[in-house]
Amino acid sequence: MVTILCFSNNEIRKLSMKELSQHLQQNEGIIWVDMDDPSEAEEETLMVSLFDFHPLAIEDSQNGRGEESHLPKVEDFTDYLFVIFNPVETPPTNQSRKTFHGLEIKTVQLSTFLSKRALVTHHYKPLSSINYAMQLCEKNPMTLGRGPDFLFHIIIDDIVDNYTPILDQLDDAIDTMEDEVFHSAGQKSMARILDLKRNIMTIRRIALYQREMLNRLSRGEFPLITQDEMIYYRNVYDHLVRMTDLAESYRDVVSGVLDAYLSVTSNNLNRVMKVLTIISTIFLPLSVITGFFGMNFKYLPGAEWE
Amino acid sequence: MVTILCFSNNEIRKLSMKELSQHLQQNEGIIWVDMDDPSEAEEETLMVSLFDFHPLAIEDSQNGRGEESHLPKVEDFTDYLFVIFNPVETPPTNQSRKTFHGLEIKTVQLSTFLSKRALVTHHYKPLSSINYAMQLCEKNPMTLGRGPDFLFHIIIDDIVDNYTPILDQLDDAIDTMEDEVFHSAGQKSMARILDLKRNIMTIRRIALYQREMLNRLSRGEFPLITQDEMIYYRNVYDHLVRMTDLAESYRDVVSGVLDAYLSVTSNNLNRVMKVLTIISTIFLPLSVITGFFGMNFKYLPGAEWE
Amino acid sequence: MVTILCFSNNEIRKLSMKELSQHLQQNEGIIWVDMDDPSEAEEETLMVSLFDFHPLAIEDSQNGRGEESHLPKVEDFTDYLFVIFNPVETPPTNQSRKTFHGLEIKTVQLSTFLSKRALVTHHYKPLSSINYAMQLCEKNPMTLGRGPDFLFHIIIDDIVDNYTPILDQLDDAIDTMEDEVFHSAGQKSMARILDLKRNIMTIRRIALYQREMLNRLSRGEFPLITQDEMIYYRNVYDHLVRMTDLAESYRDVVSGVLDAYLSVTSNNLNRVMKVLTIISTIFLPLSVITGFFGMNFKYLPGAEWE
Amino acid sequence: MVTILCFSNNEIRKLSMKELSQHLQQNEGIIWVDMDDPSEAEEETLMVSLFDFHPLAIEDSQNGRGEESHLPKVEDFTDYLFVIFNPVETPPTNQSRKTFHGLEIKTVQLSTFLSKRALVTHHYKPLSSINYAMQLCEKNPMTLGRGPDFLFHIIIDDIVDNYTPILDQLDDAIDTMEDEVFHSAGQKSMARILDLKRNIMTIRRIALYQREMLNRLSRGEFPLITQDEMIYYRNVYDHLVRMTDLAESYRDVVSGVLDAYLSVTSNNLNRVMKVLTIISTIFLPLSVITGFFGMNFKYLPGAEWE
Amino acid sequence: MVTILCFSNNEIRKLSMKELSQHLQQNEGIIWVDMDDPSEAEEETLMVSLFDFHPLAIEDSQNGRGEESHLPKVEDFTDYLFVIFNPVETPPTNQSRKTFHGLEIKTVQLSTFLSKRALVTHHYKPLSSINYAMQLCEKNPMTLGRGPDFLFHIIIDDIVDNYTPILDQLDDAIDTMEDEVFHSAGQKSMARILDLKRNIMTIRRIALYQREMLNRLSRGEFPLITQDEMIYYRNVYDHLVRMTDLAESYRDVVSGVLDAYLSVTSNNLNRVMKVLTIISTIFLPLSVITGFFGMNFKYLPGAEWE
Repeated sequence: MVTILCFSNNEIRKLSMKELSQHLQQNEGIIWVDMDDPSEAEEETLMVSLFDFHPLAIEDSQNGRGEESHLPKVEDFTDYLFVIFNPVETPPTNQSRKTFHGLEIKTVQLSTFLSKRALVTHHYKPLSSINYAMQLCEKNPMTLGRGPDFLFHIIIDDIVDNYTPILDQLDDAIDTMEDEVFHSAGQKSMARILDLKRNIMTIRRIALYQREMLNRLSRGEFPLITQDEMIYYRNVYDHLVRMTDLAESYRDVVSGVLDAYLSVTSNNLNRVMKVLTIISTIFLPLSVITGFFGMNFKYLPGAEWE
Repeated sequence: MVTILCFSNNEIRKLSMKELSQHLQQNEGIIWVDMDDPSEAEEETLMVSLFDFHPLAIEDSQNGRGEESHLPKVEDFTDYLFVIFNPVETPPTNQSRKTFHGLEIKTVQLSTFLSKRALVTHHYKPLSSINYAMQLCEKNPMTLGRGPDFLFHIIIDDIVDNYTPILDQLDDAIDTMEDEVFHSAGQKSMARILDLKRNIMTIRRIALYQREMLNRLSRGEFPLITQDEMIYYRNVYDHLVRMTDLAESYRDVVSGVLDAYLSVTSNNLNRVMKVLTIISTIFLPLSVITGFFGMNFKYLPGAEWE
Repeated sequence: MVTILCFSNNEIRKLSMKELSQHLQQNEGIIWVDMDDPSEAEEETLMVSLFDFHPLAIEDSQNGRGEESHLPKVEDFTDYLFVIFNPVETPPTNQSRKTFHGLEIKTVQLSTFLSKRALVTHHYKPLSSINYAMQLCEKNPMTLGRGPDFLFHIIIDDIVDNYTPILDQLDDAIDTMEDEVFHSAGQKSMARILDLKRNIMTIRRIALYQREMLNRLSRGEFPLITQDEMIYYRNVYDHLVRMTDLAESYRDVVSGVLDAYLSVTSNNLNRVMKVLTIISTIFLPLSVITGFFGMNFKYLPGAEWE
Repeated sequence: MVTILCFSNNEIRKLSMKELSQHLQQNEGIIWVDMDDPSEAEEETLMVSLFDFHPLAIEDSQNGRGEESHLPKVEDFTDYLFVIFNPVETPPTNQSRKTFHGLEIKTVQLSTFLSKRALVTHHYKPLSSINYAMQLCEKNPMTLGRGPDFLFHIIIDDIVDNYTPILDQLDDAIDTMEDEVFHSAGQKSMARILDLKRNIMTIRRIALYQREMLNRLSRGEFPLITQDEMIYYRNVYDHLVRMTDLAESYRDVVSGVLDAYLSVTSNNLNRVMKVLTIISTIFLPLSVITGFFGMNFKYLPGAEWE
Repeated sequence: MVTILCFSNNEIRKLSMKELSQHLQQNEGIIWVDMDDPSEAEEETLMVSLFDFHPLAIEDSQNGRGEESHLPKVEDFTDYLFVIFNPVETPPTNQSRKTFHGLEIKTVQLSTFLSKRALVTHHYKPLSSINYAMQLCEKNPMTLGRGPDFLFHIIIDDIVDNYTPILDQLDDAIDTMEDEVFHSAGQKSMARILDLKRNIMTIRRIALYQREMLNRLSRGEFPLITQDEMIYYRNVYDHLVRMTDLAESYRDVVSGVLDAYLSVTSNNLNRVMKVLTIISTIFLPLSVITGFFGMNFKYLPGAEWE
C-alpha cells in the first residue's frame, strides 16, 4: 500500500501516483511517500522510474523483506540521503503479559530517502511511528510543511521513544531474575539469564549504531539537514546516548547476576555437603557402636546391662 | 520557590519577578535566578516569557521532575550555555549510621542556564550546594559580582566535593566486605558485593560524564567561560579525574573481593569434604570389623577372646 | 593454467601470451589475466617480464602456495594496486552434511594486481568467485568493459557473499550446541564449544582485516578506484561491517554457552550430591536402628516384639 | 625546613630568606628552593609573597599534607610549570626483610614549580631523590648551573629509578606466590594474591599517569623545557614505558596465578573425593557381606565354614 | 670482538681501527662496524671518540649487558638513528628436542646506529642474523654497497624470520596441551598452561613494540631511510603484523584451553561423585536389609527361610 501526501498552499492532500508524477515535474509542494509493504511493481514505478534512486540503495531497502534487517546506516547521494533505521517490532499486546523468558527483541527495517522537497519511507511491516506521523500531519499540516527533515525527525524520535518500554521491561526482568537467583536458582534460571543477556546485547547494538548515525546527522555533516533542525536531531541523539548508557549498565548488572547464580549454586552444594557430613558424623560412629555390641564374642563387656 | 538575586553597585538585592523583568530590559546588574521546585506557572513565566530558552532545553530540565535524572551534558545555544549536572542526593543523617547494604546512591538533576549576565539554576529537590552558594553571596557580594561563570564554578565545585564522603563510604564498605568474606562468607555477602559493585559503577558513570563535560568547559571551547575562570574549571576537572581514578580502582578491588568470595566458598567445601572423608576413613573400616565379628559362623576366630 | 581476456571493440576475446604482449605494448583494450595455479615459468613470464611487478609483491603472492595464506592487505605501487584477499575454501559438498565438529574454516589466498587497464588475479586453488566473474564476462562483455576496478569489485563482492553460508552454519552450530549443553552436557561438548569459538575468531579476524581494507578502498584513497565505482566498494564494506557485527555477537553468545556449560556441570554435581545425601539420610539411621536391635545384650528392649 | 641554593659566578651558595628576596628582585643567579615539611608561615612567605604562585597550585601542593597524594599532573602557568610527581615512600630498612604480605606501596607527593631561573620543590616527607640532587649540587655546581630544567630532570630520573627495587620486590613476590600456590595453597594465599594484585595496580597507575606527563614534557609542548634537555626527559619517559610494560605483564601473571590457585583448590577437592570414593567402594560392600553373614537365619549358607 | 667492513670501489675490505678513523675523516666508502661483546675500551674508542654518539644512547645500548634487554625503540638524533631491536636468543640445538615445558623465550638486545654512510651494530651475545648479513656481504659486496639502510633491513628481516620457528613451537605446544587436557589433566598441566601463556605474552609484546617501530620506519618519518628502501621496511612490518595476529589468536586459544582444563577437572569430580552415589545407593539399603535380619528378635519374619 502506497500513501502519498503533498503539502501545498498550507494544506495537505492525498495524491495518486499520476498526480505525484506531475508534482515532481513541476517541482511544487512538499511530498511524503510512504510505501507500506509495497508490491514489486510499485517499487519499480516509484523508486526507479519516478525518483531514480541508486540501485544499491534500492537493493539495501529491499533487504528488509527478509528475516534480518540491515544495520542502521546513513549514506549521502548528494541529491538525497539514504537512511536505514531499525525500529523494534511491537509484540502483540496479549504477549506483553507473558513472563520475559521467550520474548525475543526483533528489529524491523525502515528505509528512508530524504531529499530537499520529498521524504520517501519504505518498510514491509506496519510501523506505529509512521502511523503516528501520519496522524500528526492530518491534525497539523505544518508537520509536513516545515520540510521533509522535520518530518523525518518526528518519525525517528518516535522510534527511539518506542525503545523505552522495552528497556523498562528489561529492567523488570533483571529485577525478577535477581530475586529468582537468590531464592530459587534452578537449571532454567541459567537459560533465562543467557536469554536476557542476548536481548540486552541486541538493544545495545542497535543503540550504538543509531547513536553513531545521529551523531553524524546532528553535527551538520549533511547539508540536507537544515541548521534549524539540527538541534532536534541532537535531542534524538541524546536519547540514544542515555539508551546506550542504560544498556551498558544492564550488561554489567546481568554479568553480576550470572556471578551470583554461580555462587548460589556453589553455596547450595556447600549446604548439601554439610548436611551429609553432619549425618555421617553422627550415624557412622553410632553404627560402629551398635556393631560392636553385636559381635559374637562369648564375653562381651556390658552385655549383662539391661 | 524562586529566589532572584541581583548584583549592582557592589551590593546584592533580592528582586521580585517584576523587578527582574525591568532589570533584564535595562540590561543592568548580574542576576542569579534559583528555581527550587518551581510551579509550572513559574517555569512558564521565567524560562519561556522572560528568558526565552529553547523548548528542548526546557523539556530536558523538566525531565528532572521524574525519577531518573538526565545524564550530564553541556549544550551551546550561542546566547547561553545549557548545562545539566548530577549532584548526589544527601541521605537523611540518621541513615548514615546504617550499614552500607541497602544504601543506594541516587543522583538528582540540576539544570543551569549560563548567559553573559545571568545564571539560572533549576532543580526539583533542595540542593546543599545551592544553599552554600547563596550563603557565600550573602557574606561576600563579589561572589556574584565576579560574574555568572564564577558563581557557577562555585556551585559545581561544591557538588563535586560532596562526592568525597560517598567515595569514603564506599572505601569503608569495601574494607568491611573484605573482612567479612574472609571470616564469615554467607549467602548474603554475595548480594552485598553485587550491591557495592552497582554503586561503584553508578559513581564511576557520573564521574566519567561530568569529567568529559568539564574537560570541554575548561579548555576554552565556550566563549561564555572567560579565560580567567578556566583555571578554576580545570581544578574541578582535576577532582573528577581523581574521582574516576578512585572508582576504577574500587572496581578492581571489588572484582578481587568477588574472586576471593568464590575461592573462600570453594575452600569451605574442601574443608567440609575433608572432615567427611576422615570420618568415613575411620568408621567404615571399623564398621566392617565389628560386622565381621558379628557374623553367625560357628567357629569365629577370636570369638573366645574376652 | 592462465586465462587472458581482452575487451576491445565491445567484445571479449581470449588471448595467447604472445598476443597479450602486443596488446600491452600498443596499450589497447582492457585486460584480465587470471593465473589459476600457474607454473613458475608462467609466473616468471607474466609477472616479471610482461607486467614488471615489484619483487616483494610477487613474493607475497607466491606465499599462497604454502599452507597459511597471507593476511589481507592493500598496497599502492603508484602504477598498480596490490591487494590480497582471503576467500574461504569451499568444503566438498558431501562434507556439508557432517556435524559441525571437525569442520575447520580454511582461508585461501587471492592476490590481485589492479592497474588502469589490466587486472591480474593470482591464486593456487580454484576459486568459485573467479569462475563466477568469468561467466559474467561471457554473458556480458561490459562486465570487463567497465574497467578493471568494476570487475575487481564483482570478484570481491562474490567472495564476501560466500562467507554468508558459513556464518549461517556457525549460527546453526551455536543453536545445536546450546540445546546440547542444556540437555546432555558431556566432556565432548567442551571440545566442540572450543572448536566453535576458534572458527568464530577466524571469521572475525578475516572480516576485520578486510573491512579495514575496503574502508580504505571505498573512501577515495587510491586514484585507481574511480569515483563511480567507490559506491560499489562501499557496498562490499557494508557487508563486511554486518559480518563483523555478526561474528562479534556470535562470540558473545558462545561465551554465554560456555558459562551455561560450566553451570550445568555444576548443577549436575549438585543433583548427584542431593541424591547421595537423601540416601544417606534415610539409610544411615535405619542401619543404626537395625544394628541396635542386633546387639547381643541379654535383655534387649522390644526383643519380645513379634 | 627550607633550603635555598643559589648558583652564580660558577659556585653555589646557601641563601637566607632575605637574600633570596634580593636575588629575585635583581633577577640574578639560578635558584633552587627546597621546602621540606615547611611551616604554614614559610609557605605563606615563599609561595605567596615572594614567588606569587597561583592559589590553586598552592592548594594542590598543600594537599600532600594529608594521607592521599594528588595524582601526577603538569600545568602550564606561562611563567612557570606546576608539576606534581608521586615518589614512592621508602619503607624502613628493617621492614625490607619481612615477607611481602602486609607491605603496602605508598606514594608521597612532590610538588614542583619550574620557572626560567628557579626551581621550587615542596614536600611534607623527606625524599631521597631531593637529598641525592642536593649532594650532586655540592659536588658539582654545574648541576644547578645548567638550569632548573636540568636539575628537575635529575630529581625525577632518580624518583623513577627508585621504583625499580619495588618492581623487583613484586617480581620476587610473584615467584614465591606461584611456588606457594602449587605446593601449599591455603586460605591465606588468596588474601596475599589479592594484596599483590592491588600493589601491582597501584604501581601501574602511577606509571601510567607519569608516563603520560613525561610524554608531554619531552615532546616540546612547554617552552620552559629547553630543546637540549628534552632528550633527557625522553629518557625518563622510556624508563616509565618499561615500567608500565612490566606492571602490565605482572598483572597478567598474577591473574594466571589466581587461575592456578582456583584450579589447585579444585584439584584438591578432586583428590579428597577420590579417596572417599575408594574407601566407600571397598568397605561398603564388605560391610554388606559381613552383615549378610550376621543375619539370624536358621540355615545360613557357609555358616559351618571355619 | 669488533669487525669493520668498508665498501669502496665495488669491493669490501676489512679495516683496522686506525683505517676506520681515516676513512671517517675522508668521508669515503660505506662502513659497517659490528661490535660483538666489545670490551669497555673498544666501546669508549668507537662510540665516544670516533662516532661521538649521544651519552644516553650509549647508556641504553650498554644496558644489554645485563639480564633484561631494553624494549625496542627508535630515536632520531638527526645525524643518525638509534634503534634497539629484540632478537630471540637461539636455544642450544639439543634443547630443541625437549618438551616445551621449561623453555623460556629469552630476548637479547641489538643496538644499532644508522647514519648516512655507516651502520654500527652493538650486542653482547652472538647473533645469527649478524652472521647471516656478514656472509651475504662476502658473497655480494653490493649488500653493503646499497647503503646502510639496506643492510639494516636485511638484519632485522632475518631477526623477524627467526621468530617463526618459535611461533611454530608454540603452536605445537598448544596442540599437545589441548590433547593432554582432554586426556590426562593433572596438576602439572595447569603449571604448563601458565608457562605457555607467559611465553605467548612475551612474544606478543615483542611483536607489538617492534611492529609499532617498523610502522614508523616504513612510512617515511625518518629521512635516513631512503624512499626506495621504505617498501622493504614495509615488508618487515607486514611480517610483524602477521606475528602479532598469530600471538593474539594463540592467546585466545590458550585461554580456551584453560577453560577446558577447569571444565575437565569439574567433570572428573562429577564422575567420581556419580560412582560414589551409585555405590552408596546400592550398598547402603543392602546393609540395612542385612542388618534387619541380624536383629535379635525372638520371632523374626522369614528367619525360617533357608
